Amino acid sequence: MTAKTMHDLLLEELRDIYHAEKQITKALPKMAKSASTDELKQAFEQHLEETKTQIERLEQVFSELETRPRGKTCEGMQGIVEEAKELMDEIEDADLLDAGLIAAAQKVEHYEIAAYGSARTWARLLGMAKVADLLEKTLEEEKATDAKLNTIATEVVNEKARAHEPAA
Amino acid sequence: MTAKTMHDLLLEELRDIYHAEKQITKALPKMAKSASTDELKQAFEQHLEETKTQIERLEQVFSELETRPRGKTCEGMQGIVEEAKELMDEIEDADLLDAGLIAAAQKVEHYEIAAYGSARTWARLLGMAKVADLLEKTLEEEKATDAKLNTIATEVVNEKARAHEPAA
Repeated sequence: MTAKTMHDLLLEELRDIYHAEKQITKALPKMAKSASTDELKQAFEQHLEETKTQIERLEQVFSELETRPRGKTCEGMQGIVEEAKELMDEIEDADLLDAGLIAAAQKVEHYEIAAYGSARTWARLLGMAKVADLLEKTLEEEKATDAKLNTIATEVVNEKARAHEPAA
Repeated sequence: MTAKTMHDLLLEELRDIYHAEKQITKALPKMAKSASTDELKQAFEQHLEETKTQIERLEQVFSELETRPRGKTCEGMQGIVEEAKELMDEIEDADLLDAGLIAAAQKVEHYEIAAYGSARTWARLLGMAKVADLLEKTLEEEKATDAKLNTIATEVVNEKARAHEPAA
């Protein structure tokens, strides 16, 4: 589909995000299983539940736009998820893997922060207050998840991962 | 390479970012050429110059780590750049394309904010103050670019792009 109006552009972005969220629901259970720090495992499990709600919220948005929910291959998220998979395949040390998983998850969150930010702004410009509010709600959740991952890295994981460093 | 220490993890992230930045130097001239709003064209051109400096800074970081600068395919950025290319191929309307290009560029910036953020934190943990400072400097530039794109969207591009909306 070629976008001819801002409404089209919004719809294209929503389809990209919808596909991205679906990929995240597949990646998060693996990330939770691979994580060994309790706080991180819980954060991934909690974000999986949050992501399912975010998908329902997107379906509500599609309904507001009177269109069927449909995804469009999100190559950005595909690449980010692929990198997370490589980490899980390659890193054997549990604490180091946790540090890597946090970095990968923050890339996921930042992709979403950018995508939801644009979609929310376009919805607001088009006078679609309800759609904009739904997208804003998810945007705030993604920002909160990113901040929470920062806290887990700083307060728990990083020091453990650094402990494996050989003495200089 | 399998990361066994935080130093390895940092190096892997730097190689990912190095490849990402190289891709960005290829994408930005096309994005600048496709942009029609003066402020946006200039922002892309300016960020291209900034990106070249950021690559030099990464080469300085590799030198500090006593290793040869080397990239490692960054699938996340490949996907994001691919999406930007699709926009340029598909959207004919100049103002709408500008709005789409800003959204795509913000995904680029957010990927980098996440990646540089992790690398900077790991360098700091490893006591590599100079490396951490170099990465922090670029991190701040990426955040400033994201904020600038927001301003261009809000103050110039979005209203023009919305003007193409057919009356309800």
